[in-house]
Amino acid sequence: MTDIQIIAFDADDTLWVNEPFFLETENAFCDMLEDFLPYHSISRELLTIEIKNLKHYGYGVKGYILSMIEAAITITDRRIGVETIERILALGKQMLDKDIELIDGVEDVLEALHGKYRLVMATKGDLLDQERKLNKSGLAKYFHHIEIVSEKQEPEYRKLVKHLDIQPEQFLMVGNSLKSDILPVLNIGGHGFHVPFHTTWEHEKVEAHIEHDNFRQLTSIREVLDYIN
Amino acid sequence: MTDIQIIAFDADDTLWVNEPFFLETENAFCDMLEDFLPYHSISRELLTIEIKNLKHYGYGVKGYILSMIEAAITITDRRIGVETIERILALGKQMLDKDIELIDGVEDVLEALHGKYRLVMATKGDLLDQERKLNKSGLAKYFHHIEIVSEKQEPEYRKLVKHLDIQPEQFLMVGNSLKSDILPVLNIGGHGFHVPFHTTWEHEKVEAHIEHDNFRQLTSIREVLDYIN
Repeated sequence: MTDIQIIAFDADDTLWVNEPFFLETENAFCDMLEDFLPYHSISRELLTIEIKNLKHYGYGVKGYILSMIEAAITITDRRIGVETIERILALGKQMLDKDIELIDGVEDVLEALHGKYRLVMATKGDLLDQERKLNKSGLAKYFHHIEIVSEKQEPEYRKLVKHLDIQPEQFLMVGNSLKSDILPVLNIGGHGFHVPFHTTWEHEKVEAHIEHDNFRQLTSIREVLDYIN
Repeated sequence: MTDIQIIAFDADDTLWVNEPFFLETENAFCDMLEDFLPYHSISRELLTIEIKNLKHYGYGVKGYILSMIEAAITITDRRIGVETIERILALGKQMLDKDIELIDGVEDVLEALHGKYRLVMATKGDLLDQERKLNKSGLAKYFHHIEIVSEKQEPEYRKLVKHLDIQPEQFLMVGNSLKSDILPVLNIGGHGFHVPFHTTWEHEKVEAHIEHDNFRQLTSIREVLDYIN
């Protein structure tokens, strides 16, 4: 591990709490539509529409709001009024304006690594949204820059490593998603430290038991310092 | 100009046609609402809401769609039905799926500069959307990478130049917006070549007569090669 030059951190649910806010919003959304369908069916319909729309909208809150609007219209067979759409727009702006809740240990780890490694934030959200969160979080000073990727798959990580002018084995990714943050990085020859978050988005779930020299399974982000310091 | 190492190109309305598609969409939007307000008032209301929402949504098609939805509800005082919202969602997806129309001369210029300078695309749109356009355009092979910035103002250009590991005087920006592509770059010590596009978004318009050693006013992107080759 002595070769590592750049450590990339996933943002949502790795540095700060995110998924619970989506769930909170989803609950409010289900409340609005409960006259039309039971909760679990609304959730399922919304997820279907979100995934169908990823190719149009990508990841992030704005695409999520658009999918909620589409889902509300579809689920109710157009029987809602535009007041409901207004409430969804308001829910979306609330999400975008949320305060940041750092995950325990994050700041200590960044402070310890800062200056020894080049730290970047690597995320597939909206740049504006992620920049705002980074500024609000007080963590901006630890990061060299933000890398926004449209997908977290092997081609994008290859491009990222090339763009950072390093070799894959000099790259470490720390994140909560095995599918997005860890597996593709291991596959291109990088290092991956997995720090699970208690809630993981359905679409990000993979079942995996990983045995790999460049892989570490952690239970808290603090344990990054057990391997890298 | 012999020191230039990296040439950044704005994307929308510099490499390919964009603003006319927004205008086309806006016309379709005004058509939907013409029973409620005259065209110019709808346009003005939409622009007001778009600008108010920039701090929430940033630039790009998704934020534009959300602002159209909000404007449709506001303008009509909630008297439209959700069918109109569905049509706006469809307009948005159409915009995201548009074919790319390259601006004359772009490919020749990129081909001539490719390999001599590091070429990047610098844009404030959505990454997913801009990546898709770049891939569709057939121009991806000329660019080292895409830089997405949340705003095109001096702090963001300073960050960009730092991130590219060059000095400002080694940086040239080519673009159609004096306000976003040229003035802030000149102000931080970089070079700016302005190639006007026939339509410029209201919010991007500035009146300026620029006298600056690092500035060139072009009439076609082909003229880049008169100064840099």
